[in-house]
Amino acid sequence: MMGLKIVTIGGGSSYTPELIEGFIKRYDTLPVTEIWLVDIEEGREKLNIICELANRMIKKSGLPISVYGTLDRTTALKDADFVTTQIRVGGLEARIIDEKIPLKYKVIGQETNGPGGLFKALRTIPVILGIATEMEKLCPNAWLINFTNPAGMVTEAVLKYGKIKKVVGLCNVPIHMEMNIAKALEVEPNRIRVDFAGLNHMVYGLNVYLDGVRVTEKVIDTILNGDAYMSMKNIIDLDWEKDFIKALGVIPCPYHRYYYKADEMLNNELSEAETLGTRGEVVKQIEKELFELYKDQNLDIKPPQLEKRGGAYYSDAACRLIESIYNDRKDIQVVNTRNNGAISGIPRDSAVEISCVITKEGPVPCTLGELPIATQGLIMQIKAFEIISVEAAITGDYHKALLAMTINPLVPSDTLAKKILDEMLEAHKKYLPIFYK
Amino acid sequence: MMGLKIVTIGGGSSYTPELIEGFIKRYDTLPVTEIWLVDIEEGREKLNIICELANRMIKKSGLPISVYGTLDRTTALKDADFVTTQIRVGGLEARIIDEKIPLKYKVIGQETNGPGGLFKALRTIPVILGIATEMEKLCPNAWLINFTNPAGMVTEAVLKYGKIKKVVGLCNVPIHMEMNIAKALEVEPNRIRVDFAGLNHMVYGLNVYLDGVRVTEKVIDTILNGDAYMSMKNIIDLDWEKDFIKALGVIPCPYHRYYYKADEMLNNELSEAETLGTRGEVVKQIEKELFELYKDQNLDIKPPQLEKRGGAYYSDAACRLIESIYNDRKDIQVVNTRNNGAISGIPRDSAVEISCVITKEGPVPCTLGELPIATQGLIMQIKAFEIISVEAAITGDYHKALLAMTINPLVPSDTLAKKILDEMLEAHKKYLPIFYK
Amino acid sequence: MMGLKIVTIGGGSSYTPELIEGFIKRYDTLPVTEIWLVDIEEGREKLNIICELANRMIKKSGLPISVYGTLDRTTALKDADFVTTQIRVGGLEARIIDEKIPLKYKVIGQETNGPGGLFKALRTIPVILGIATEMEKLCPNAWLINFTNPAGMVTEAVLKYGKIKKVVGLCNVPIHMEMNIAKALEVEPNRIRVDFAGLNHMVYGLNVYLDGVRVTEKVIDTILNGDAYMSMKNIIDLDWEKDFIKALGVIPCPYHRYYYKADEMLNNELSEAETLGTRGEVVKQIEKELFELYKDQNLDIKPPQLEKRGGAYYSDAACRLIESIYNDRKDIQVVNTRNNGAISGIPRDSAVEISCVITKEGPVPCTLGELPIATQGLIMQIKAFEIISVEAAITGDYHKALLAMTINPLVPSDTLAKKILDEMLEAHKKYLPIFYK
Amino acid sequence: MMGLKIVTIGGGSSYTPELIEGFIKRYDTLPVTEIWLVDIEEGREKLNIICELANRMIKKSGLPISVYGTLDRTTALKDADFVTTQIRVGGLEARIIDEKIPLKYKVIGQETNGPGGLFKALRTIPVILGIATEMEKLCPNAWLINFTNPAGMVTEAVLKYGKIKKVVGLCNVPIHMEMNIAKALEVEPNRIRVDFAGLNHMVYGLNVYLDGVRVTEKVIDTILNGDAYMSMKNIIDLDWEKDFIKALGVIPCPYHRYYYKADEMLNNELSEAETLGTRGEVVKQIEKELFELYKDQNLDIKPPQLEKRGGAYYSDAACRLIESIYNDRKDIQVVNTRNNGAISGIPRDSAVEISCVITKEGPVPCTLGELPIATQGLIMQIKAFEIISVEAAITGDYHKALLAMTINPLVPSDTLAKKILDEMLEAHKKYLPIFYK
Repeated sequence: MMGLKIVTIGGGSSYTPELIEGFIKRYDTLPVTEIWLVDIEEGREKLNIICELANRMIKKSGLPISVYGTLDRTTALKDADFVTTQIRVGGLEARIIDEKIPLKYKVIGQETNGPGGLFKALRTIPVILGIATEMEKLCPNAWLINFTNPAGMVTEAVLKYGKIKKVVGLCNVPIHMEMNIAKALEVEPNRIRVDFAGLNHMVYGLNVYLDGVRVTEKVIDTILNGDAYMSMKNIIDLDWEKDFIKALGVIPCPYHRYYYKADEMLNNELSEAETLGTRGEVVKQIEKELFELYKDQNLDIKPPQLEKRGGAYYSDAACRLIESIYNDRKDIQVVNTRNNGAISGIPRDSAVEISCVITKEGPVPCTLGELPIATQGLIMQIKAFEIISVEAAITGDYHKALLAMTINPLVPSDTLAKKILDEMLEAHKKYLPIFYK
Repeated sequence: MMGLKIVTIGGGSSYTPELIEGFIKRYDTLPVTEIWLVDIEEGREKLNIICELANRMIKKSGLPISVYGTLDRTTALKDADFVTTQIRVGGLEARIIDEKIPLKYKVIGQETNGPGGLFKALRTIPVILGIATEMEKLCPNAWLINFTNPAGMVTEAVLKYGKIKKVVGLCNVPIHMEMNIAKALEVEPNRIRVDFAGLNHMVYGLNVYLDGVRVTEKVIDTILNGDAYMSMKNIIDLDWEKDFIKALGVIPCPYHRYYYKADEMLNNELSEAETLGTRGEVVKQIEKELFELYKDQNLDIKPPQLEKRGGAYYSDAACRLIESIYNDRKDIQVVNTRNNGAISGIPRDSAVEISCVITKEGPVPCTLGELPIATQGLIMQIKAFEIISVEAAITGDYHKALLAMTINPLVPSDTLAKKILDEMLEAHKKYLPIFYK
Repeated sequence: MMGLKIVTIGGGSSYTPELIEGFIKRYDTLPVTEIWLVDIEEGREKLNIICELANRMIKKSGLPISVYGTLDRTTALKDADFVTTQIRVGGLEARIIDEKIPLKYKVIGQETNGPGGLFKALRTIPVILGIATEMEKLCPNAWLINFTNPAGMVTEAVLKYGKIKKVVGLCNVPIHMEMNIAKALEVEPNRIRVDFAGLNHMVYGLNVYLDGVRVTEKVIDTILNGDAYMSMKNIIDLDWEKDFIKALGVIPCPYHRYYYKADEMLNNELSEAETLGTRGEVVKQIEKELFELYKDQNLDIKPPQLEKRGGAYYSDAACRLIESIYNDRKDIQVVNTRNNGAISGIPRDSAVEISCVITKEGPVPCTLGELPIATQGLIMQIKAFEIISVEAAITGDYHKALLAMTINPLVPSDTLAKKILDEMLEAHKKYLPIFYK
Repeated sequence: MMGLKIVTIGGGSSYTPELIEGFIKRYDTLPVTEIWLVDIEEGREKLNIICELANRMIKKSGLPISVYGTLDRTTALKDADFVTTQIRVGGLEARIIDEKIPLKYKVIGQETNGPGGLFKALRTIPVILGIATEMEKLCPNAWLINFTNPAGMVTEAVLKYGKIKKVVGLCNVPIHMEMNIAKALEVEPNRIRVDFAGLNHMVYGLNVYLDGVRVTEKVIDTILNGDAYMSMKNIIDLDWEKDFIKALGVIPCPYHRYYYKADEMLNNELSEAETLGTRGEVVKQIEKELFELYKDQNLDIKPPQLEKRGGAYYSDAACRLIESIYNDRKDIQVVNTRNNGAISGIPRDSAVEISCVITKEGPVPCTLGELPIATQGLIMQIKAFEIISVEAAITGDYHKALLAMTINPLVPSDTLAKKILDEMLEAHKKYLPIFYK
């Protein structure tokens, strides 16, 4: 059997060492022999640092894996088996703009489902669709594993407008939640199963099973009474109102705080922006430190500091997914994929984030029934935001962009929406050619 | 043919003269011979004033209509043909509480779809269900025409839990919008038709037809460019962002400003509360002045000052609806009725506000197709709020009330939701026995 | 105000005198001033006879209506207000083939929802789409009122593939049923209302209201116990099994006998074919006799013999519909129109036959809720047959035609389906160019 | 860890040796220690023969499994882990009646989805619901694995009306199809995966994947051109019309011949009934021979002759399912379970037969998207038949039974339906107490 060729677009990302580690530790069941790390000119230096670290890690492992760093995407994609994308169009500078402009108007930027997410989608989707077009020619049977945010919108864009259909969007939120639930119950993760359904960064844990018995209410109690809640590094640890979660009856994800605790989140971001800087600024500093570490010629493992990044386990999730597709594992993982009727109310051709059984043919969503009525409005609001944002990214239509911005639940007024939109369009002009043609 | 018996619960309302006027001017096609005005002990004085005014109005008309004022609801309901409800459980004092407590937390009270609406529902629904129970025994073939707010939730409660099924909820917003659109186009109202769909105080004008031709875009332009917009007396006249309405492609109702212009509305309410007082306080003053007018023994018409009240044309809408049911008119009116599949995504057994053809058998919703995706999230959010609020009203379940409060889009945080809920529960304790049993 | 121009494609039909009568008697509210009767070369003689009779009828009426007969469709369509279609591609000869070939295999031909209907659709749809294309250029605001069978499929074809969207399909079955129900109840037709829903020739009466009270069960009893059943001239009068209709709980149309009494209908057709001839042959004889009558220079009214044709009242239904559209009548009529969600389970863009309120903007389906579960399978089977037949007509795809034929509930086997299909394709070759390109 | 207790109701069935064999060969992963075979007085002799054979088989295996035969169901059920049901209320005599009465009227009896299936449901459902009621008390955590036909209706009855919810219905048709497809492609079964969806004995193979690549069209070609088709022992091997299956685009199950080849199937049954006897009579003879074999004191394996029965592999499917539930295997198996939205158009609370991932918490249906339009009508027709039949079984309502009988696609007329129903009700009177109370 031939070994597998993996291509990682945005290979100069600080997350890459985790990806490398993931392939190394899965080698027995996932025989990767080539890893191509692709980046753009602006990322050349980081790419070099990453390639060198990757080579040291592989050397240590003793495995017959070759790592290639390149700026030539076309060469890299040729005959790939899996392509992962972890790009950031405009870099962290663009993210900081996504955060700062809304905050000027006392609006949270939020890089997936907020105004920032709209602009990240507008910048990113054309690039990802370009990759899909190349893949159709160079590696038509490859899977595109996207963990570029906003993962829901990017997946929807490829599903609806891409030249390839083998695409999966990935997020680390559900894994974190599942691991935290296991910790809260003080059991091994493999004894529990959680039904997840919703959208990217808007996913609910509907049911929790422990050894085959539904224990959702118990989990909610445990979480609420304990100190075990499913926080994540990149979302601050605000306490939920216990009676509300009890009433909701399902487990929200950390990002739900942006909606159910909008006030507190806004105040927190405003005060952090003045002290620590925005999340983008913080990450920039972390990245800088990480790359300093990576340069160390003695480092031949993924450094533990990497886990401080909110995206920790992202890459591990990607490796796990690739391994399951490759081996037709039929385990249940939570990914972004075509709804296809799994969640009623959401268009069949839209992307959802849902528990899926992972087969060689890709993810098959589990039928989980209707979502609780109390969650449907918020989910439809974000889904409408996503659908219209994707249309805006494809068409460069100003009105669609404004519509997306205004209906976003984080944006409290049409007038403000227009102000923020106009200012952000101007600030990101360079990355939005379709809006300025 | 026998004349018709109309019973108006809450007959002491300041709106009643309009109702009397409506029956007088429709006598030729709607032969009402008995009007029973019912109120409670606290409203005895107002009821007397109204009855005397009504008798003067009828005397002037020369029609054989008898008006009865009574505190004995049972006697009044016996063999009624139509029962209208225009009650206010707890009076304007309760409304003022509904407004003031949320405002303390910088949250809009909003007496239909906001925190205030939740409490109005909790106070009102048990009373209306009691009326429905009596109607089943005393006048099982009568129609219940409800124009008590929150009209959507009250209608849903009767449809789901009431002893009678012949119930219609009524609001004056769509009529206002239709009349304002005609005015903006400078045509007679009967030349236009508007497809309305949504929820009470959350209804959209989907299509406008002039002489059979769809002119929706033209209407949007006209409205946005002119000074003709469909303001209503009880909602301040904030300008819409023109590009947003163009992008939305449908015509919002004035209440949509609470969601699409949340910031401005809140600031406006905060400043008005400090100067004019809350809307409840303003209305209280208007009512006082109206009743002074009504006492005038020379007054034998509906005084024009009544139209200053936001509810103007409510009663006219009620008379028009009754006339159409009675005569099997099959004209199209906008009412709150069972969804039955007319709006997809909303449960079949829930109430919606929608264009209906009015037959002798009641309203039949027009099939208008799917709502624009951009509107679905907000509508589902409010519908979920309504469904859960109604359940709370029926059960007295604290957690349901908290869930409704928290998912309301006007309430920005679960913690705030709990504070407001707890304070309002305490303040309205007297009218919420089911929560304190 | 200008008078209206009506164009009738297939003007040489024996039904036309009823149409003329319909316009004459509605002149006060429907000021038709031009009626253009269009036909093809093969119908020249009939067209002349009809035009002369029409002129005598109008002369007698003293109304300022001009009748034009022409073979030049383009001239006729110019600036039309309403276009009606009553064509028969291939003439009665084709119908007789539609009946005879299936009968050879002991299968009912059935000119709408059976094998015959498939072939009538294949022959007719391209012609009607051609008319729609001309209308777009010559009279883009006109309504196309189609009463050519299979009316459901023709309507669906125009809705999905036509250049115009203002199309309504019409059938006389619901009117007949409503009139017969009134007769059975011994009341004036205007005192009852029936909710109809389903497909063309597959429509159910869901609810019957008398003076605003639901009396469906009573109607079913009356029909079953009396001799008042809703037979139609062109469908034999087989008795229903009373307990079955009671169990069904809704009122089937006469064509439902093809499914719920398939055995009896087949045996009847087989024996009639041997004695009277097929329905097509009978109609041919009736038509011949009618045209003999029409030639009589003294005849200046619609002769009563016309009502022997199964299509009687078709034309009256058309005039009634046109009058309601023109006057924005908002009465409820049963027509074939876009489903748009009115009947759940059926695609939104498919045609259904359903009670609609008739406005200047066309028919708006009434929301009638879900059909009884017992009817859903049969309706979906016919709808699938219709959808696939229309696709076959558009594409000329042999496999689609075979699929439609095989899933038709009147066809008991795939092998038989293929035999019948192949023989009919050959027999109708002349009219199916797209299958032989 | 404690060993598992299995209870088999109808333990005296000739299939039981396969079940025993299944548990023996899976002992490593499914540690069954007690097997209780339960039967009724009439089956005492067969039960004894089976128990003795089972004991010889286990003795040969050397495993610590105890087999108990009993007529005392209550004792058996106590603390069971899994309960399987393979009962035949009224025995083969009843089946023969189910076949013979319809055939008198030239109607196929068909023991699942035909008139015979209706009566099998009427006799069986009350008994199974009785078992569910006992299970709730005696073994509330046990799974009920039903392979009694009609498996779809029995499952639906337990899901809707049973005291327990842990029920799965099982059929061997999908396994047969999958094995035959693998054989046709000449590959190992584990290299292919088939998406199955539909109803019991009305299931379609929607997609076939070989090593992760969709090969559905290729499979259809292979099947149609080769001699490899998926026949089953108990359904005669009639050839499909190749072009029809190509047009259908999905793979029908053998039972689809009853609908798509109704004529041929009927003629075949009529001629077989005259020569071999009905299937019931044939099975009776096979059973007799099998029990003769089973009595052989030297026999200590499942005799190969058992596979001649149409139900072969049923028991193996049951063991496989139990093993996957027990071990949380998450493989994909095809079972009858709650629809829950997996197949749109079918009520959420109805049973469907669909590919599911098998977890410790039971089967979770795969989201497979909409079924092809051409299949929806037939599926809805059978589902409506099932829903109404189950209601008839629960209520004893004559009209519901007649409605089910008449809408069944195998029954060509309401009059015939009533005749067959009345005759069958009389013939099975003894087993239908609810219809005669």
